Amino acid sequence: MTAISVPTGLFGGVFERGGAAEHTGDAGWLRALLDAEAGLARAQARVGLIEPAAAEAIAAACLPERFDADALGRAAAGGGNPVIPLVRELTRAVEGEAARHVHKGATSQDIMDTAAMLVARRACAAIDADAGALTRELARSARRHRDTPMAGRTLLQQALPTTFGLVAAGWLEAISTAATRLSDVAGDGLAVQLGGAAGTLASLGAAGPDVVRAYAAELGLAEPALPWHTDRGRIAELAGALGRLCGAVAKAAHDIVLLAQTEVGEVAEEGEAGTGGSSTLPHKRNPIAAVSALACAQQAPALVASLLASMAQEHQRAAGSWHSEWQPLSRLLCLTGSAVAWLRASVERLRVDPARMRANLDLTGGLLLAERVTTALAADLGRMAAHELVQDACAEAADGRRDLADVLAGQAEVRRSREEIAALLDPAGYLGSAGVFVDRALQRFGARPAGVEGEEG
Amino acid sequence: MTAISVPTGLFGGVFERGGAAEHTGDAGWLRALLDAEAGLARAQARVGLIEPAAAEAIAAACLPERFDADALGRAAAGGGNPVIPLVRELTRAVEGEAARHVHKGATSQDIMDTAAMLVARRACAAIDADAGALTRELARSARRHRDTPMAGRTLLQQALPTTFGLVAAGWLEAISTAATRLSDVAGDGLAVQLGGAAGTLASLGAAGPDVVRAYAAELGLAEPALPWHTDRGRIAELAGALGRLCGAVAKAAHDIVLLAQTEVGEVAEEGEAGTGGSSTLPHKRNPIAAVSALACAQQAPALVASLLASMAQEHQRAAGSWHSEWQPLSRLLCLTGSAVAWLRASVERLRVDPARMRANLDLTGGLLLAERVTTALAADLGRMAAHELVQDACAEAADGRRDLADVLAGQAEVRRSREEIAALLDPAGYLGSAGVFVDRALQRFGARPAGVEGEEG
Amino acid sequence: MTAISVPTGLFGGVFERGGAAEHTGDAGWLRALLDAEAGLARAQARVGLIEPAAAEAIAAACLPERFDADALGRAAAGGGNPVIPLVRELTRAVEGEAARHVHKGATSQDIMDTAAMLVARRACAAIDADAGALTRELARSARRHRDTPMAGRTLLQQALPTTFGLVAAGWLEAISTAATRLSDVAGDGLAVQLGGAAGTLASLGAAGPDVVRAYAAELGLAEPALPWHTDRGRIAELAGALGRLCGAVAKAAHDIVLLAQTEVGEVAEEGEAGTGGSSTLPHKRNPIAAVSALACAQQAPALVASLLASMAQEHQRAAGSWHSEWQPLSRLLCLTGSAVAWLRASVERLRVDPARMRANLDLTGGLLLAERVTTALAADLGRMAAHELVQDACAEAADGRRDLADVLAGQAEVRRSREEIAALLDPAGYLGSAGVFVDRALQRFGARPAGVEGEEG
Amino acid sequence: MTAISVPTGLFGGVFERGGAAEHTGDAGWLRALLDAEAGLARAQARVGLIEPAAAEAIAAACLPERFDADALGRAAAGGGNPVIPLVRELTRAVEGEAARHVHKGATSQDIMDTAAMLVARRACAAIDADAGALTRELARSARRHRDTPMAGRTLLQQALPTTFGLVAAGWLEAISTAATRLSDVAGDGLAVQLGGAAGTLASLGAAGPDVVRAYAAELGLAEPALPWHTDRGRIAELAGALGRLCGAVAKAAHDIVLLAQTEVGEVAEEGEAGTGGSSTLPHKRNPIAAVSALACAQQAPALVASLLASMAQEHQRAAGSWHSEWQPLSRLLCLTGSAVAWLRASVERLRVDPARMRANLDLTGGLLLAERVTTALAADLGRMAAHELVQDACAEAADGRRDLADVLAGQAEVRRSREEIAALLDPAGYLGSAGVFVDRALQRFGARPAGVEGEEG
Repeated sequence: MTAISVPTGLFGGVFERGGAAEHTGDAGWLRALLDAEAGLARAQARVGLIEPAAAEAIAAACLPERFDADALGRAAAGGGNPVIPLVRELTRAVEGEAARHVHKGATSQDIMDTAAMLVARRACAAIDADAGALTRELARSARRHRDTPMAGRTLLQQALPTTFGLVAAGWLEAISTAATRLSDVAGDGLAVQLGGAAGTLASLGAAGPDVVRAYAAELGLAEPALPWHTDRGRIAELAGALGRLCGAVAKAAHDIVLLAQTEVGEVAEEGEAGTGGSSTLPHKRNPIAAVSALACAQQAPALVASLLASMAQEHQRAAGSWHSEWQPLSRLLCLTGSAVAWLRASVERLRVDPARMRANLDLTGGLLLAERVTTALAADLGRMAAHELVQDACAEAADGRRDLADVLAGQAEVRRSREEIAALLDPAGYLGSAGVFVDRALQRFGARPAGVEGEEG
Repeated sequence: MTAISVPTGLFGGVFERGGAAEHTGDAGWLRALLDAEAGLARAQARVGLIEPAAAEAIAAACLPERFDADALGRAAAGGGNPVIPLVRELTRAVEGEAARHVHKGATSQDIMDTAAMLVARRACAAIDADAGALTRELARSARRHRDTPMAGRTLLQQALPTTFGLVAAGWLEAISTAATRLSDVAGDGLAVQLGGAAGTLASLGAAGPDVVRAYAAELGLAEPALPWHTDRGRIAELAGALGRLCGAVAKAAHDIVLLAQTEVGEVAEEGEAGTGGSSTLPHKRNPIAAVSALACAQQAPALVASLLASMAQEHQRAAGSWHSEWQPLSRLLCLTGSAVAWLRASVERLRVDPARMRANLDLTGGLLLAERVTTALAADLGRMAAHELVQDACAEAADGRRDLADVLAGQAEVRRSREEIAALLDPAGYLGSAGVFVDRALQRFGARPAGVEGEEG
Repeated sequence: MTAISVPTGLFGGVFERGGAAEHTGDAGWLRALLDAEAGLARAQARVGLIEPAAAEAIAAACLPERFDADALGRAAAGGGNPVIPLVRELTRAVEGEAARHVHKGATSQDIMDTAAMLVARRACAAIDADAGALTRELARSARRHRDTPMAGRTLLQQALPTTFGLVAAGWLEAISTAATRLSDVAGDGLAVQLGGAAGTLASLGAAGPDVVRAYAAELGLAEPALPWHTDRGRIAELAGALGRLCGAVAKAAHDIVLLAQTEVGEVAEEGEAGTGGSSTLPHKRNPIAAVSALACAQQAPALVASLLASMAQEHQRAAGSWHSEWQPLSRLLCLTGSAVAWLRASVERLRVDPARMRANLDLTGGLLLAERVTTALAADLGRMAAHELVQDACAEAADGRRDLADVLAGQAEVRRSREEIAALLDPAGYLGSAGVFVDRALQRFGARPAGVEGEEG
Repeated sequence: MTAISVPTGLFGGVFERGGAAEHTGDAGWLRALLDAEAGLARAQARVGLIEPAAAEAIAAACLPERFDADALGRAAAGGGNPVIPLVRELTRAVEGEAARHVHKGATSQDIMDTAAMLVARRACAAIDADAGALTRELARSARRHRDTPMAGRTLLQQALPTTFGLVAAGWLEAISTAATRLSDVAGDGLAVQLGGAAGTLASLGAAGPDVVRAYAAELGLAEPALPWHTDRGRIAELAGALGRLCGAVAKAAHDIVLLAQTEVGEVAEEGEAGTGGSSTLPHKRNPIAAVSALACAQQAPALVASLLASMAQEHQRAAGSWHSEWQPLSRLLCLTGSAVAWLRASVERLRVDPARMRANLDLTGGLLLAERVTTALAADLGRMAAHELVQDACAEAADGRRDLADVLAGQAEVRRSREEIAALLDPAGYLGSAGVFVDRALQRFGARPAGVEGEEG
């Protein structure tokens, strides 16, 4: 087999990052198709249906470098899938009597679906590796910045203080949960397919179920209770898990892009030379890895929908809906891998600026702590009255560009000194359970609690 | 509370079938929002933050019939969600000092998200009930027709024999697996939301995490490790499970519609008078329940995509992407419930016609068993040569409208008598592992193996 | 007819803004269905198929207040659509002999599809009214701020100066082009449907085509060349135009949300009291109209996909794909209307802050004009060399927090005085064709060119 | 340039049919990107900004075979798009002083967007060619079978007679309208992009607008009023038109698959040897071209949604949403082309079987004409009473397997002889305006009316 070289093509650098691309392209598919044929022959040898030597002769011919993907693809136009010409070529390639046993008892879809499962398993393993590195980095960041205050923002307006540690812990929790889910689906949700032409395994006689079991063992995939030619629940489950992971990645990447805005400046990607540059704006340092993660992840929802919409597959084999899965599934796996890999790059490049975070917190001259003041005053005045009083004071402070502490101290109902009010308006003193939540996220991730260790910080 | 009457509206009869609709409409949401407020107050009493009497005073005011959903909805335009006016009205409705503790420590999203989880849990329970009845009926049908031969069809062409039992078992396996998955997600994947304005629970001081735990216990939902205002993995997981179930329903419903075609006639919906009629074609008996199941289920993929596309939620609260979840989630729950309920109705109405199945099997004069002949001849001739010989014979039989057995018997290489060939061409003798697969599906469903019992058949 | 009251329900305030909601809800559909039946009777009178008096008797019975949408909806479950029970009720409501001519020659889909076209036309007219007000406001803003400099931002990083006028002109151009396109589709792309049970109009004898023509004239819709029961191109075209308009709205709304960020502060929504408030953060003034516009518009792409996916409608009437259009189409029309109405509200509330725009331009200490310096130096040094020199200088300035002019003046190759360099770094002098583009957009919009008039500024 | 060879890859045979694939793959994109750079240089020469010789030197270097798409793609990872490394390589490739003018005044997006428009225009031209051949074939079929009766089917049940001519005319009308719409969009909806880094064309001084005009003239694309970096209406319009065309193709392909069912058998694809075969079922003749058309077309709705969801592009250049357009747009163009080309192949291979159509019409023993009888009786009995009488008679005929004419003749209210009833039940006499509609569709298509000519039939 010629060395697999990914990314390929004009768009490969952006959309084929990480290890999944290798398995979802033509080379990956061809390998998986041949592994499926070889596995089938060996499974039949295991149960005594064919001679071991025949199985090995078949397996020996299943070498990707012997086959021409372009030629197979062109020939696929005749019957609607590449397995038909592949079986023809493979049969030719097998020496002697063994050739009779190539593809024995199988229908094209058995091989395509089994190959799809192998492609998915390999791509998911690659995704998992990048997700592991990404989440470890996020855990480090959450631990390091456990107590770094920054503005919490709702509807993109500063709302209350939070910490960068909690922000990173939120990304960590979302991504590691989604990655674990994907890993679970890839672990036991991927099964071999073997049903023969109409899902009864009729041509294998009574041996059918034994062959299926051996086939599953041979390839390390699950054994399905029934052939699943037109039960696409496994594809749907996989698609859902991929879509969820992309969503979690998109959320973090979007936050990074927002925090990296010129006017916010709380984080920046510090890449090697040549990354993040612009063809015309030499001064720019774009958060290009986060942007690329978004570019990949945003394509996922539609691909998931495409796969779900293909589920209503007719009778024992669908007339189009099965075929229309192949590329969306490949793209979804590849793009999820790329999204995760790009976010990993972004987080690895990320420079966090606690000073800028603090400066941004001070932008509103205390308005940010209005809730705290409201809560304090609510004990005396009732929640609604306190809410209204503080709202009016904030409006007055904002309009007249006065200090909120001054405005409030001047209100009779408030009955507190300016100093007491100023203390209430200090962001660092109003972080609630942020630290507890960070610790929890780290514990869940299996990391040591924040603050205990030092060598990584 | 005024009695909930569903279905409502011109389209309710078609799209609001089954029990989920009740929980996903306005009345269901209003009830859930008030349950969330009442639960929050009680949780705070549990941990000693407020007096039990205050909590009960708040809970006592949380009566849906006291609130006007239309008025709340109109007022929601001011702040972008209905919780803001609801809290105002609720505070007014609570008597005495307790009013101060309404919505304490919470932000609007805490209540909306918690209510969404309650809506989802209730809707999923209703879906599960219909799915249970549906799958029991499918199990009965699979058992009864375990050995009823029918044509297996690939690409909508007759391919090889299968059994109606295996077809029904396939529907059963797909739907019960998907329904179980949904049930699992609804069981432990739905959590309360409580984070306060920026997700730190700052206004609850150190009591935040305890309140969250009590809140979860109070409402019977899971306790989240972190506030999940902008980690929408739970919504995505739920959406994926709903989408998968709809896909499984659509597959079965589509098959029923195809099998009920005038020219196929293997099944028919036999409803009560007034179902399946046409305004202009008095003779028609449309499989209207299956058609309606499709009409509902086909809307799911796009709704799932809508929810996944909303996941990239900014910072601590999204500017639009959160809001854009509410209706797609409600629709997806409601339509999934309706799809399941319609398919249940279809299967309950289904009359299966084994004689027509047999007659259809005979339509091709033996061509259907070509694979079997190929396999038999392959032992002598090799698979490819046998394949080509049989393909040529089929073409000759089809073109000349001759009997395939005759054509084959006339070929020298075949070396078999016409009788031997006719036996090979008998569909009932070539069902492979169909029965085994049916038994497995029934076993997995927890039903007795086919043939053991009789009272249901 | 009881007064139509929209918005309704808990979510109506957010998702049923503007005039389209009135036409896309139950009341609107019921009215349209009855208009379709009345129009059909009158069309048949026009061509002499029935007596004018009979037509008027039918039309007189077509009063929405006589019909119970909920009851019709429930009865729709029997046959799969609400027209079947509606025809039954309408026939009962018509006095005397005329009752025989109710729904004459029509199939349910004729009435549903024609009603859908009426619903669409009315909703589009309402959308157009809001779009008109919105674009006039945008034109005013573009004119007023034709020369107000602000930072242009690429990948959310400040890039080069632009003007707020050009930003507003860009929104104007995108929205008015999309609204015009929608208006065109609504103007000539909506046709009556009349084909009878199988699209041949067989029960009308030779009069079929004449009735269709009269029907179209009666309702002011286009006359289709053929019945289009399963040719859903009109729906697709409408969906595409609605999706495009939503996309244009989402772009502008998203920009407003970004410009309104606390750290950017270049625009703010200044609504009446009660808008944009937060339940817990009294100081916040959220850009709630823009957020709501996004919440509505973001649901559009999936709804468009749902409608496109429903196009493969079987034979002469689809088994589910037709039914699955009704609600997505209604939602898409309603949400587009709401999105446009919300953006109109946002723009009407918008306070633009030129001073803050200028302050933000100065944040980078000249880095923003790097391109200009590059261009100036390129004449001497070549583009690539100049690009690299300026990139290095920017890095040096940013790292050492030095003034870019100083850094550049210190470079031998630059051969320019510090003053010359400072002039090159003045943003107001580097706006290129921004003004020309604003003028063009205004001209295209039919407005007076910027600067000519004064009374509006 | 190395010869473009499409289809490529394992899936190319199925998903890259027709001429569009050539333009939407890497080779097509590379050519378009270089055409965009060459066109820009020539445009600047046209307006006197650079020397004609410099422009020609640049254009001379714009040879695809000089560039390595894989290497450019890999380098694209640095800045997020392939134009950045392309400009670097191109600048190196240009000899002498002219190198300074490469990419002058442009930003990466100017070149990418302009190239996307060229890709789209070329792909649309290829789609249009296949659509032309397809619709001409459909017109021939509609003309030839203008009066061939077949069963009209609603909800997949036989309903009333129609003609195959009208079915083909319906496909023709839908596809030719959609193809014309696409052609219109490709004709005037595709514009050059040129705005420079922030859409002001600042680096071109006052010459900007003139360069844009010359650029448009140079490439034969429209001149935009404004740069449209973040106004994606053109992409949306194109996507909508492609989605509509795919929907029209899917409808026809789906009908063909249904009509080709073993039990229906009214049409069949008669391909050359090797098409439509199955790896295990030698007798099968799958309608593989129609299946492949469906497989391609069904992917379109999600791709359209993906493009629409990308419209909310931030400020002057989006952080991800722009990038996420490239592949979905390429896929959508390619798949639309493939879907059209496959349907063309299907229709060219189509054998229509009028005898089978007639036989199927007779399957229901007259039930199909129930509407006609209802209409005839309605004159005496009223529509509802006639409807119920005929419905009961049909039920009786179907249950007892009796002849409908007999049942009806036995009813006292019917007052018609058995002969009169039998005449009413003749399908060929109840085709309504089918012929008129066929003639109209042909006239609209610009073909001669059916029956006038003979040489093609």
